[in-house]
Amino acid sequence: MKRTSFADMACPVARSLEVVGEWWSLLILRDAFLGTRRFGDFERRLGIAKNVLSARLRKLVEDGVLERRPSREDAREIEYRLTEKGRDLLPVVLALAQWGARWTGAGEDALRFENRHSGAAVLPIAVRDTDGCELSVRDIRIAPAHAPKEEDRR
Amino acid sequence: MKRTSFADMACPVARSLEVVGEWWSLLILRDAFLGTRRFGDFERRLGIAKNVLSARLRKLVEDGVLERRPSREDAREIEYRLTEKGRDLLPVVLALAQWGARWTGAGEDALRFENRHSGAAVLPIAVRDTDGCELSVRDIRIAPAHAPKEEDRR
Repeated sequence: MKRTSFADMACPVARSLEVVGEWWSLLILRDAFLGTRRFGDFERRLGIAKNVLSARLRKLVEDGVLERRPSREDAREIEYRLTEKGRDLLPVVLALAQWGARWTGAGEDALRFENRHSGAAVLPIAVRDTDGCELSVRDIRIAPAHAPKEEDRR
Repeated sequence: MKRTSFADMACPVARSLEVVGEWWSLLILRDAFLGTRRFGDFERRLGIAKNVLSARLRKLVEDGVLERRPSREDAREIEYRLTEKGRDLLPVVLALAQWGARWTGAGEDALRFENRHSGAAVLPIAVRDTDGCELSVRDIRIAPAHAPKEEDRR
């Protein structure tokens, strides 16, 4: 299917989806956050076709989200590691995990995010005011740089 | 392309993507958060084909993320409104917006999220400890219910 590229859109959501919005990409990144590094491990854990996995990994590397490098244990093995740009996607993955746990019956603890040192669960991802309090959608205004016409807002 | 359904996977990220992971779905939801409600307005704003928009809206309604209802101004007009389940996706959209602003050159203020009453920008979406402080990826442990084998973690 021919698809419009989101990359031309100035919107940062569109541009993010251009990088991580393909089917499988965010699950590959979820597994990268869980510590998966090798092609064969991604393949086995995800049950994904080799050619699709290969295309997704290539794009994530091209976009600087993952980097390929030789394994420390065996330099003949290639590993895929999250870059800083990739690690910065953790809030996206956590927000999706949290929503899924709440709304899809996946269960609260199917994927637990905790402070490695204290073992305490992290705070729920939320939109927070400058004082750290959660804001409800009704208290938030979202303003695009190019504001939609009034008819769109009503 | 035949795709594996993520819905069978117990992982909450997979299940969330089953609902919102199709190309366009999150952009439709972004526009819903911006106040877009009518088919024609989504179509015009997104530059999306009618049949694709129609399919995406149908699925989002079936999954309870949007609801169809007559417009208050003109009962012959159908509107698509976010349900509570849909509104709860705001942190996902904000996390994507923020990452896009930082990493794709979309610009910090292309999409601004602010407190409607004070006008103050909301806090950055982040993974936070119980005391509200940001945690870096290195301080976080992510534990799946079915822990991967040790070879995956190394």
